[in-house]
Amino acid sequence: MTHDLRRALAPRTVVVVGSKKADGYMWLRNYSTFTGNVYSVQIDPNEIPGIEALGVQNFTSLADVPGDIDYVMLAVPRQVAPRILADCAKRGVGGVSLFTSGFAETGEEEGIKLQQQLLEIAREGNVALIGPNCMGLYNRRLGVRQSGEQGAGEAGDAGFIGQSGTHSINFGLVGEAHGVRVSTSVSIGNAIILDVPDYLDYLTDDPETKVIAMYIEGVKDGSRFVESLRRATAKKPVVVWKGGVTDAGARATASHTGSLAAPRAVFDAIVRQAGAVPAHSLEDTIDVVKALLYAKPATGRRMGLMAMTGGQSVVITDAFVDAGLEVPRLTDASYEQLRSFFNIVGGSYQNPLDMGGTIGFGGSRETLGRLFDILDADVNIDAIAMEMASGFLARMWQSTPASLDTLLDAIDAHRNRSAKPFVAVLQPQHVEEVVVAARKRIQERGIAVFPSFERAAAALNRAIAVHRFRAGMD
Amino acid sequence: MTHDLRRALAPRTVVVVGSKKADGYMWLRNYSTFTGNVYSVQIDPNEIPGIEALGVQNFTSLADVPGDIDYVMLAVPRQVAPRILADCAKRGVGGVSLFTSGFAETGEEEGIKLQQQLLEIAREGNVALIGPNCMGLYNRRLGVRQSGEQGAGEAGDAGFIGQSGTHSINFGLVGEAHGVRVSTSVSIGNAIILDVPDYLDYLTDDPETKVIAMYIEGVKDGSRFVESLRRATAKKPVVVWKGGVTDAGARATASHTGSLAAPRAVFDAIVRQAGAVPAHSLEDTIDVVKALLYAKPATGRRMGLMAMTGGQSVVITDAFVDAGLEVPRLTDASYEQLRSFFNIVGGSYQNPLDMGGTIGFGGSRETLGRLFDILDADVNIDAIAMEMASGFLARMWQSTPASLDTLLDAIDAHRNRSAKPFVAVLQPQHVEEVVVAARKRIQERGIAVFPSFERAAAALNRAIAVHRFRAGMD
Repeated sequence: MTHDLRRALAPRTVVVVGSKKADGYMWLRNYSTFTGNVYSVQIDPNEIPGIEALGVQNFTSLADVPGDIDYVMLAVPRQVAPRILADCAKRGVGGVSLFTSGFAETGEEEGIKLQQQLLEIAREGNVALIGPNCMGLYNRRLGVRQSGEQGAGEAGDAGFIGQSGTHSINFGLVGEAHGVRVSTSVSIGNAIILDVPDYLDYLTDDPETKVIAMYIEGVKDGSRFVESLRRATAKKPVVVWKGGVTDAGARATASHTGSLAAPRAVFDAIVRQAGAVPAHSLEDTIDVVKALLYAKPATGRRMGLMAMTGGQSVVITDAFVDAGLEVPRLTDASYEQLRSFFNIVGGSYQNPLDMGGTIGFGGSRETLGRLFDILDADVNIDAIAMEMASGFLARMWQSTPASLDTLLDAIDAHRNRSAKPFVAVLQPQHVEEVVVAARKRIQERGIAVFPSFERAAAALNRAIAVHRFRAGMD
Repeated sequence: MTHDLRRALAPRTVVVVGSKKADGYMWLRNYSTFTGNVYSVQIDPNEIPGIEALGVQNFTSLADVPGDIDYVMLAVPRQVAPRILADCAKRGVGGVSLFTSGFAETGEEEGIKLQQQLLEIAREGNVALIGPNCMGLYNRRLGVRQSGEQGAGEAGDAGFIGQSGTHSINFGLVGEAHGVRVSTSVSIGNAIILDVPDYLDYLTDDPETKVIAMYIEGVKDGSRFVESLRRATAKKPVVVWKGGVTDAGARATASHTGSLAAPRAVFDAIVRQAGAVPAHSLEDTIDVVKALLYAKPATGRRMGLMAMTGGQSVVITDAFVDAGLEVPRLTDASYEQLRSFFNIVGGSYQNPLDMGGTIGFGGSRETLGRLFDILDADVNIDAIAMEMASGFLARMWQSTPASLDTLLDAIDAHRNRSAKPFVAVLQPQHVEEVVVAARKRIQERGIAVFPSFERAAAALNRAIAVHRFRAGMD
């Protein structure tokens, strides 16, 4: 049975069942940014005044809620959950998220029995059930959130499917801190009705979603998963972070969501063959999504590198080559041009260009522009990576606030002209506070900026792998 | 010929030759924290008033400087360098750092010829020459620095040898931001007289240095290097970060310091056989040094893991197992004790302990103490790693400022009792500013705290490898 998730995941009316003071009315607060109608269903008279104080209309029965109900968040004790789910079926709601945990993931008889009841009720009533044991929907544009710290308003472009509430929330929070905003994200919990392929199909067809990422610990129906994954990668890039990759991790997985984990090798092979790319942590997933969203698509692997010192030139080269990219010599024509404004002492310009010796950093927008032009025109180079020396940038920015904009203007001018992907590296180093502030300015321009050479290289390399797959090259 | 570096690297009198306004009197400013005598030698009458305005006595000849001269920083044009180096030889100085670049690393005839002259003068005059093309000495206790941003005062305990001025400066700056302070660090540049083994021998015998780290791109005399490395690892842990590990990196290396790079596989094998551990970036080097300095020595690889949520339990397990460590089941006795205060819904306690469901974070110092005690007593567990959930910690700290200290007190009480290494993970996530501030508080306690599970695991695993080597186990 397939479900049309459009009502549930882009709702106009949302109902929270079981909101209570003990958790700070968490779900009502998470939905305080919702652009549609939010109602509460709560029978406990002690809880109702607190709910109404939030400006939310409360009903003592789901049956009393007016109009169509698109999305219900159930936060009720587990023993009660099956009965309320049956009420939802009766009301014909668009979808239900079940926050409550304590089901099959506990490994206990009572939990397994209750989960089986949920399954039967949802199947009989054809309920689009999200969870149980999940944080449900995050639709940024509509302001339906998994956490009160998540952003709301403008739509993002990264879709997310998370077999972990923590990672789902964090993809929204940490992603946004790094310039990646969510379109639609679902924390899927035990996934007893709706599973990864259902959400994947939805995000594949969702026009707001430009890139899909997911955290999964296991998949129940492998062939259905692969089928959905292939359909998705034909339309947009997909990043798959697989947790529980080890025996010990699989043990943790089993007690987390009650799903069976497959070995990493199997999963990575499936993922790559289907044209998606594997990732191995939250940061790594965000990095790859960022490279896919903000660096132009390219299929070549030959890097033109720009660093500020000789020491960093060595390290940036190591990082990109270790990741699987190439750092070739430039053309003779490029060297001819470079020779004219690199002086001999200090600055090398083979590739990487060791910029520190001559031009300084943002010292001259024109000089930087000429370097970009040379790399852009060089037929040996497919993509460009640039070190933004943190200490230097911090001093420069603090002494001359406009200097950062000047530098970013030069980068933007280059990005507007060039079809080659551009990535920047801004390491936190010893100026972390300044770097966080600067990074946010850089991200606002839609520049793909990474906190280390290794992370930039690893992300760009996989973005290129996606583009090669889509171009039928690998 | 061997040199006694004690005068040069722990000087009482320092002279800067060639300080000038164009670089903001950089070297005199770097030495403004020096506890001994600083003199200047400068013949240009236009530069002298600026030098004297800094409160530094200037002489127009090295011969005029009073008393013994332990350390000279030469920052003169390359054509002049040989002559001034000869003056240093005549004065019998303890050592000379040559900041000036433009020698063999340029690959140009003139630079190669000048470097040969330096070599001959230094050999004939038996000068302990550091460089050329280097940032020289950083002695934190004495306040002789490579950069005006580096700290001065109390002695640190990490020695550093850097074949890159940038990485040498950054090891001091970034290390200190992450709780690792330098004892003595030398930026060695082209290393035409003093080379890695000389500095390694010095740091091996230096009582302030507890751990030695180095960044090297190549070594001229492999057998001498290995001999020094073995002598060092017999006395203290050594971490070797090798740059220029790839063909392209080797090309960048050649133009950086003019040295020949060996492939990574060769280097890593040499390093491991000599009982040292390889590292692959600045952050990685600092991480391993931190684990060696602040986590207790252990030779076992069986981790007891503590996480705040099910999702993080899976990921922390993956990270530690991927790094080469083990996550075993606890003893039945431990599970018996854990069962009594973990409730069923939400929290799992197999290993990792999923703390979020029951105890909260720092919610109770006593509860956390009991968990520590159980892991400490468990014979299946050799080392302990704990997730400090950033978002939770940030909210907790902001609402109850004393709560962070309460948490850290519980950790310290455990560390005081336990012989098992303890590492903490505090991810920047979306609360980077708060995390930076919290991390500094945590570091002040001497707790080994890392910004990701992967980095904690990779660092601890190599620290254990060092302890196993020293115990004759591997």
